[in-house]
Amino acid sequence: MSQAFYKSIEQSTLQTNFDLNTMLDELTFNEDGLIPAIAQQYDSGEVLMMAWMNRQAIEETLKNNRVCYWSRSRQAFWRKGESSGQVQNLKSMAFDCDGDAILLQVDQIGPACHTGRRSCFFHAVDGQQTQITSEPLINPEELYK
Amino acid sequence: MSQAFYKSIEQSTLQTNFDLNTMLDELTFNEDGLIPAIAQQYDSGEVLMMAWMNRQAIEETLKNNRVCYWSRSRQAFWRKGESSGQVQNLKSMAFDCDGDAILLQVDQIGPACHTGRRSCFFHAVDGQQTQITSEPLINPEELYK
Repeated sequence: MSQAFYKSIEQSTLQTNFDLNTMLDELTFNEDGLIPAIAQQYDSGEVLMMAWMNRQAIEETLKNNRVCYWSRSRQAFWRKGESSGQVQNLKSMAFDCDGDAILLQVDQIGPACHTGRRSCFFHAVDGQQTQITSEPLINPEELYK
Repeated sequence: MSQAFYKSIEQSTLQTNFDLNTMLDELTFNEDGLIPAIAQQYDSGEVLMMAWMNRQAIEETLKNNRVCYWSRSRQAFWRKGESSGQVQNLKSMAFDCDGDAILLQVDQIGPACHTGRRSCFFHAVDGQQTQITSEPLINPEELYK
C-alpha cells in the first residue's frame, strides 16, 4: 500500500461531525439496504451478537432506546426481545470511519442468543477443533412460547 | 414469534463441537464468499473494527496468528498492518451460533483505524448529531508511506 492508496481510502472516510440525518445518508447499506450492527454489553465489554439494520431500524432504535434489527430470515423488523423479553436497552450508538458498520453499546437483559446463552459467540477455535465455551442460562424453549 | 419459529431457527444453529474444517464448511459466506469479522482488543474489550474474511483469510489468520482480512475495495488479501506495522496479533477466534459472524480477540499494535485512531468506531450519536469521540494517535500519512 502506498500514499496513493491512502489518498484513495481517505476520500471515503467520514472525518467531521454530522447532523444525524446527514450521517444516515452517508452510511453504506448493502444491496438489501442493510448494514451490520455489533451489540456489545456496555459495562462488561462482552460482544454479544452481530445482526443487521436498515435505516428505519436505526431510527426506531434511537427513538426508543431499544434495539430493533432487520431479520434477514423473516424479512421483518426484529424488535430484540419482543417475544422473549430479553431486550437490549440502548446505551450508545457509534458508526465507523467509513460508515459501513455500527457499534451498539447495550444493556442486554438475560441472554442475547436464541440458544439461551449470554453471547452468540460460543464456538471457540481450539487448535483443529472448535469448542463450545458457554452453556445456556435459560432453556431456549422457554424463550419462545 | 412462536415455538414453530424457534424450531425453524434451531435447525440452522450449530450446537456441537466440530473439527475446524467441518466448522469452516458450516459457515455462511455471502455471495462474494465473505463473512463479517469483528476485531476486539483482547484485554480492554474495546471493539476496534469490523471487516470481512473469506475462507482462505480465516485459515491464514489461524496459521500465522496474525489477522488477515479480505479487502473488498482492493479485491485482495489485506494482511492488517503489512504496510503500516499496525498488526493484529490473534489471541482467539470464535464463531457465532449460526455461523455467519466471527469474533477475533486480538492484540492490536497501535491504531486499528486508517485515520490513525485506535478504533474505527469514533462517530458517536449524540441527540440529533454525531460527534467524533477520539483523536488520531498517529498522523495517518505516517502509516502509509
